[in-house]
Amino acid sequence: MRTDTQRMRAAVWYGARDVRIAEVDIPTPGRGEVLIEVAYCGICGSDLHEYADGPHAIPVAEPHPGSGATAPIVLGHEFCGTVVALGPSVIGLAIGDRVAVEPNYRCGACPRCRAGEYNICRHFGFAGLMGNGGMAEYAAIPAYMAHLLPEHVSLEQAALFEPASVALHALRRAGATPETMTVVGLGPVGLLTVRLAAERKVRRIVAVDVSPARLHRAAGLGATDLIDARMEEGVGERIRELTGGEGVDVAFEVVGSESALRTCLAATRRGGRVVLVGLAPQVSLDTFALVNNEQSIVASVGYRDTYPELIRLVAERGLDLTPVVTATITLDGLVPHGFEELLGDPGHQIKILVDPTAHRDRVDHLVPCAAAGTATPTPSARGRRY
Amino acid sequence: MRTDTQRMRAAVWYGARDVRIAEVDIPTPGRGEVLIEVAYCGICGSDLHEYADGPHAIPVAEPHPGSGATAPIVLGHEFCGTVVALGPSVIGLAIGDRVAVEPNYRCGACPRCRAGEYNICRHFGFAGLMGNGGMAEYAAIPAYMAHLLPEHVSLEQAALFEPASVALHALRRAGATPETMTVVGLGPVGLLTVRLAAERKVRRIVAVDVSPARLHRAAGLGATDLIDARMEEGVGERIRELTGGEGVDVAFEVVGSESALRTCLAATRRGGRVVLVGLAPQVSLDTFALVNNEQSIVASVGYRDTYPELIRLVAERGLDLTPVVTATITLDGLVPHGFEELLGDPGHQIKILVDPTAHRDRVDHLVPCAAAGTATPTPSARGRRY
Repeated sequence: MRTDTQRMRAAVWYGARDVRIAEVDIPTPGRGEVLIEVAYCGICGSDLHEYADGPHAIPVAEPHPGSGATAPIVLGHEFCGTVVALGPSVIGLAIGDRVAVEPNYRCGACPRCRAGEYNICRHFGFAGLMGNGGMAEYAAIPAYMAHLLPEHVSLEQAALFEPASVALHALRRAGATPETMTVVGLGPVGLLTVRLAAERKVRRIVAVDVSPARLHRAAGLGATDLIDARMEEGVGERIRELTGGEGVDVAFEVVGSESALRTCLAATRRGGRVVLVGLAPQVSLDTFALVNNEQSIVASVGYRDTYPELIRLVAERGLDLTPVVTATITLDGLVPHGFEELLGDPGHQIKILVDPTAHRDRVDHLVPCAAAGTATPTPSARGRRY
Repeated sequence: MRTDTQRMRAAVWYGARDVRIAEVDIPTPGRGEVLIEVAYCGICGSDLHEYADGPHAIPVAEPHPGSGATAPIVLGHEFCGTVVALGPSVIGLAIGDRVAVEPNYRCGACPRCRAGEYNICRHFGFAGLMGNGGMAEYAAIPAYMAHLLPEHVSLEQAALFEPASVALHALRRAGATPETMTVVGLGPVGLLTVRLAAERKVRRIVAVDVSPARLHRAAGLGATDLIDARMEEGVGERIRELTGGEGVDVAFEVVGSESALRTCLAATRRGGRVVLVGLAPQVSLDTFALVNNEQSIVASVGYRDTYPELIRLVAERGLDLTPVVTATITLDGLVPHGFEELLGDPGHQIKILVDPTAHRDRVDHLVPCAAAGTATPTPSARGRRY
């Protein structure tokens, strides 16, 4: 922790298209809180939505019950870092501990929390959307959000535990590990779903997207079959063909569109399951076919109890999540090289990490890596600093 | 078996509004088949649909692969009776055995059959719709369809195993036994779902229908709360109120309508499940809310492996399914006192059984019992013969 000043730099959401890199007070950790120096904070699709045309989840009128905050809000919920100060009554954490942050507020008192399903807590929220988050040099978080990292789990891996948690929770919502599956939509969560499914030895993983670059990346992460969804029609039927006419056990809808849901239903076998991760608006559904095929549509929102498994997978099984990182940028680069880059070219950039303390090294900004900008990126290309 | 003639009377579907009580040949049981003398055959909603505006499931052009048959077809798939003749190669059954019939064709060879999920067999079908059924004095059925009844399980109970199987399968599709649930739609399957849920000690069973008579009957079968769905609006919200604002764990949609599905979704808690039993056409679905509430829509079609549990429940736990029977009629009464009665007054009649051999006792027809015709029938009212 810098002791020469009580100020820090942070990416603060004031309104749509109004995210400022501002100098603000370093927060003081309250009772049960720790202050961390942020190592990385990933840019999530929801951050992008808040930037492009928010507020969506950011509280502007009423403070969120989990945080007590309203905008302006420090963005960023996919973060990790090192504990630099402890508030009163913190146990189990010490200064110098490296931690992954599970950024969810939960009340602990509602029926869902009491059933252990805190991802659907009545007062659920995210630090970095409903309260101050990790796109800053420092962040004060409740100690329960901090997961201690073993020595050989890097902070770069830890920065990906949040989107990987969404993927892992979706896989768990699929029930027993499927033999065959498809992932429709290869953003960070879709690609991480492919990766974690490969980790679970799913025999057939059919990856579907409109971007050849993303399909290529899916192959590197373990997809067994690639389908370009720009094909005129019949993606669902193509997937059935790949599975001997039967259809896959589980389809993951990670786009959030009616047509993606249709593709998923057409691709799924009788008795199979569509896991809905994407947020589509109103869709029209043929429930007659759904019943006759005895299919299920299972929603998946957020995650719960995922960080321990991810830490074990990285620490003990050599899981590497970082191939989804296509760039690491500075706070100053957030708008031009983060949000605007993602809005302009959604095909090549996958996960962009922000390094909020990089400016201290007098690097003006860290731009996207070259590999991610080519038409056929190396599937294992990582974001590099330069 | 009557040996004086090789002819029998049967209800034969020739077309919509053309079901004839005809004299036809008594079938000869083939290899692996048994001939049963039918004791009772219930009238199902699908029989009614075939009568009113079929064909729906009845094959008219191509023979069904399970039966090799096309119309005209002997109706009736909810039946039971006594074995009177054995075809070659039948093991485990003897003349005189009383059996409940599980009337499903299945190929045994498709991936779903090989996974034990024969209810979603690629060539699935029903005796009594896709092939000859039980609205006849005799029926020849594959021996695998016959479940031997213990001595103290009556044939009247056994006649209800088929609709009770639909209810039991729906309950199983709900996953772990819920603490709170609602059943929207109190036809035979809805009422049997209430009954079987009560058997499983579900703490709160909210029954919803537009018919006060059916609601009353649900109370007698174990419903803890009754809601008249003709209330202007907000049935789902009413159900939430009954569960402390939380919503039920599981909602059973047994109507087959968009509004019933909406009610179910509104009534179900975060993380809860809607089991879709009714066959609705296209519906519009708010998947955004579905995902944010992490709800599931789980289809349930037919049943599998249900008869052994139902036999045990009746034989050992004293389960009584017969309160859903509101009338027992003869074959000659099928159209006027069965189909037309059900089409004209869907509120008071629940399950009507046909006794195909009753005419031998020179009873012209058996009309609906009085209790079922009153505005507030005794919940435990049974069909009586007179």
